[in-house]
Amino acid sequence: MFVNNYAILGGDKRQIALIENLAKDGANLWVVGFDKINFDNRIIKTNAENAIKNSYYIIFPLPVTKDGILLNSPFGKNKLVLNDKLAKKLYNKKIFCGTSEKLLKLGKIWEKLNIIDYSKNLEFAIRNSVPTAEGAIEIAMHEYPETVNGSKCLVAGFGNLGKALSELLYGMKAKVTVSARKTEDIANIECRGYKSILTSKIKETNDYDIVFNTIPDLIFDAKTLKKFSKDCIIIDLASAPGGVDFKTASKLGIKAIQALSLPGKVAPKTAGLIIKKTIYNIIKKEEIK
Amino acid sequence: MFVNNYAILGGDKRQIALIENLAKDGANLWVVGFDKINFDNRIIKTNAENAIKNSYYIIFPLPVTKDGILLNSPFGKNKLVLNDKLAKKLYNKKIFCGTSEKLLKLGKIWEKLNIIDYSKNLEFAIRNSVPTAEGAIEIAMHEYPETVNGSKCLVAGFGNLGKALSELLYGMKAKVTVSARKTEDIANIECRGYKSILTSKIKETNDYDIVFNTIPDLIFDAKTLKKFSKDCIIIDLASAPGGVDFKTASKLGIKAIQALSLPGKVAPKTAGLIIKKTIYNIIKKEEIK
Amino acid sequence: MFVNNYAILGGDKRQIALIENLAKDGANLWVVGFDKINFDNRIIKTNAENAIKNSYYIIFPLPVTKDGILLNSPFGKNKLVLNDKLAKKLYNKKIFCGTSEKLLKLGKIWEKLNIIDYSKNLEFAIRNSVPTAEGAIEIAMHEYPETVNGSKCLVAGFGNLGKALSELLYGMKAKVTVSARKTEDIANIECRGYKSILTSKIKETNDYDIVFNTIPDLIFDAKTLKKFSKDCIIIDLASAPGGVDFKTASKLGIKAIQALSLPGKVAPKTAGLIIKKTIYNIIKKEEIK
Amino acid sequence: MFVNNYAILGGDKRQIALIENLAKDGANLWVVGFDKINFDNRIIKTNAENAIKNSYYIIFPLPVTKDGILLNSPFGKNKLVLNDKLAKKLYNKKIFCGTSEKLLKLGKIWEKLNIIDYSKNLEFAIRNSVPTAEGAIEIAMHEYPETVNGSKCLVAGFGNLGKALSELLYGMKAKVTVSARKTEDIANIECRGYKSILTSKIKETNDYDIVFNTIPDLIFDAKTLKKFSKDCIIIDLASAPGGVDFKTASKLGIKAIQALSLPGKVAPKTAGLIIKKTIYNIIKKEEIK
Repeated sequence: MFVNNYAILGGDKRQIALIENLAKDGANLWVVGFDKINFDNRIIKTNAENAIKNSYYIIFPLPVTKDGILLNSPFGKNKLVLNDKLAKKLYNKKIFCGTSEKLLKLGKIWEKLNIIDYSKNLEFAIRNSVPTAEGAIEIAMHEYPETVNGSKCLVAGFGNLGKALSELLYGMKAKVTVSARKTEDIANIECRGYKSILTSKIKETNDYDIVFNTIPDLIFDAKTLKKFSKDCIIIDLASAPGGVDFKTASKLGIKAIQALSLPGKVAPKTAGLIIKKTIYNIIKKEEIK
Repeated sequence: MFVNNYAILGGDKRQIALIENLAKDGANLWVVGFDKINFDNRIIKTNAENAIKNSYYIIFPLPVTKDGILLNSPFGKNKLVLNDKLAKKLYNKKIFCGTSEKLLKLGKIWEKLNIIDYSKNLEFAIRNSVPTAEGAIEIAMHEYPETVNGSKCLVAGFGNLGKALSELLYGMKAKVTVSARKTEDIANIECRGYKSILTSKIKETNDYDIVFNTIPDLIFDAKTLKKFSKDCIIIDLASAPGGVDFKTASKLGIKAIQALSLPGKVAPKTAGLIIKKTIYNIIKKEEIK
Repeated sequence: MFVNNYAILGGDKRQIALIENLAKDGANLWVVGFDKINFDNRIIKTNAENAIKNSYYIIFPLPVTKDGILLNSPFGKNKLVLNDKLAKKLYNKKIFCGTSEKLLKLGKIWEKLNIIDYSKNLEFAIRNSVPTAEGAIEIAMHEYPETVNGSKCLVAGFGNLGKALSELLYGMKAKVTVSARKTEDIANIECRGYKSILTSKIKETNDYDIVFNTIPDLIFDAKTLKKFSKDCIIIDLASAPGGVDFKTASKLGIKAIQALSLPGKVAPKTAGLIIKKTIYNIIKKEEIK
Repeated sequence: MFVNNYAILGGDKRQIALIENLAKDGANLWVVGFDKINFDNRIIKTNAENAIKNSYYIIFPLPVTKDGILLNSPFGKNKLVLNDKLAKKLYNKKIFCGTSEKLLKLGKIWEKLNIIDYSKNLEFAIRNSVPTAEGAIEIAMHEYPETVNGSKCLVAGFGNLGKALSELLYGMKAKVTVSARKTEDIANIECRGYKSILTSKIKETNDYDIVFNTIPDLIFDAKTLKKFSKDCIIIDLASAPGGVDFKTASKLGIKAIQALSLPGKVAPKTAGLIIKKTIYNIIKKEEIK
């Protein structure tokens, strides 16, 4: 049986942490694309063909490919091409990957595979909101010349990340305002002890020291930015193209920072552990079915 | 136009707070069933017919009726019968009430009315989770012979109330364990700094000082209770019949308390304000449509 | 040797918790004044003479006497007179008691005894600030018709109790203002995320929902109270005569509550445990000398 | 009268923030050593002689001198020598400076001046504990490959900095252990919801992810470090030579970071504001006398 056998192909420090964590749990591991890394003896460095042959679970990184051609594999000497030959070897395997969009466009053969995108999983999103929030706070502490303690912070958006961020800021004794669209979210925001504001009303306000945007919409457009102080800093955490008119911000002398993929940068070990936990829970749920 | 005219028929201290809050906002008010209460001059005490005639918005209490016959009206001298004659006067009015089940069973004429049950509203549930959580803590402080600070607390269920309660307990420096069924809720619980446990595994554990149940299912059955210490106390916040086998608890010498309708008891003014906010937001949303 | 032998004479539920805790730790116990209480077999109910003869450590309650004549012993059938005859038996014993003032006035013979007042110990004061703060919050939740969440609270004084209270209120999402006299305390208050006010300036403000006084000085005199809203409630935690002009408060219709000795009422088991911890640490320090 | 006139001589970004804040408050300012900085017109750049002549309050930076000869003045073109000629001009002035030790060793004439070291002020220490704690957290987030959330943190020492740090870590949902020597501090630590440990017992433990040292004693000596995991990181915040055997740490592969003067690096504006608040309060107290 292959049930405890994993092939890990490509990835950054998060995938290294994932490998080490799976090994601790007693998994058998064949890894590809980590030539520059020293692992424990039990972890077998090999080629893709061998790794896949030996394993039932195949884990691709996050993102699985950057250019839509090659596997994302920064620690590997050789680049692995994501071609149909590779795909054929993946039949009857359970394949996990992150941000799978480009992979699924590689051809019909890829679409037919049993691919699960762990980055689309709600548990994954919730758990990643913590390293993202910490990364955002780290940037704020680094860039803002005063303390977060006592500063007036706006968190735009009250999804998973907005929730994690505002709770962290409240714990740091910042003065927290949070925006949302729905009345039930406004209710939630007020019950947590934060000031609330409708997202549509942000443009009518301006008294913030640090702004965290989590909404993938142009909330901070030229008109809104013009009302803001030059001393304010904006950290945009929404996926590209983000929610800030960076050109206008730059013209106005407002420091605006686009901060993406924070978990892998700030806390790669935690990020690797989150991938493992998410994959485990996906497997457990499928087994129950 | 009647747009700022409200008839308030029946209710307890929450409805009194609602009346006073609406008056502060400049509403015109006709109230029925508050004979024993002194109000400001601008609030007109009258009979049901007159109140309804003058108003566009009709607000019934929470619950609107206890016996399915009479209006719930503890501060009124006379009891108002919820009969078809009354219903006819309510045509073309916008009617708000709480826990409307029994009202809607009164007859076909009632079903046709424009009745909105504010107690079913998500905003209402979220906001009420705060006075409910505070009421639960008050009971815990009163009944438990040690401090909440440092005590081992279990919160069963991570819905609105479970979230409010566990956050409050963490702020009070209790040792908080929270149960949930879904992996994404478990993720959320862990990210908030609490210990997590699957609800199905509660029966395998027993090391708690104070247990708060928010799940309307028999989680704390005889088998589970038998593992618990006699010194532990259980506060059941789930709607009747609740989630605790009270008979077995009593036999075992475990103090188990059924605590229902806490907002009206613990914080009637806040509860009245919540009714007002919910009604306002329902009206606003309907206007936008 | 008597080193693990304790005589416990008199006291309320706190002393019962103390007895049970000492027994759990393996101490040998002779207890006096608990006729109505059922204890474990290892705890010996006896008379004062026998208890003292068998023990090295003698523990009196808190307060040791209410009238300056008899031992404070609510669970005892007979009253023990604190006379010279008793004192003589206490020579060469290590005696612990709480609020010893009246005991020390009983005569010269008492002054010469080796009496340690555990209620004067800083550790005792710090640990008791927690049940006192929780008791104060319980009163606030019971008396104030809105939630503590979102309410405007004033904590007068930033000693041990003021610190515990303000931290608890912040965790409960109240809007916290704290008063102090010293600039370093003001600095501390602001760094914790609360609003600060000089105690001398309280009389110039009035926008509070719940006021907690911890200062044993007439801070809330007639002039100050006259500025307050009738809807505000005041909880006076300072030792008698307290810090509130209760007569004027009553005239003005402001609810003012004197709340004393909360630990024994709210959390007797915790209070008993605190007595034990304090006594242990006093013994340990003496041994090191 | 010169009462609102200030001469600011030398300093880094903190002093620039101080200058700008004093100007906002309406002070008249003569500044020396900021040739490279653009200020508002009302702030007069001049030489030392002129600045001192025009002012009653003279403010030196923190530290006032690094080498014991020249004024610490990183933004100045020319270096000012702290000689007797300068000292004579300072007669009858109220002089503020930070870390004054080397200044007071410059000669008898300096000792006779009315010099107040604001860095020795308790308010200054308390307020600076916030940017120091935030700076320490920033380092932890940057260096530790997992999140602070959920990590096992040890804070050695429970002075002003230890208090600020542990509160911040608790708010970030770390698992916080705090060490202290005194039983009353241990009591305080436990009441705040942290685990406590006697400082003398640290060497018997080892299960930490992130260690923050605030004690200026060699707590983390070779013997203690040898018990620690290689994956643990240590941030030493105690003033030089600190509390960590860095050589041994390096040999063992434990990352140990000496982090000094964080407020000026992490939050220079806040640090400047703290200097202003401290000086204001010192002046106010002297006036009352």
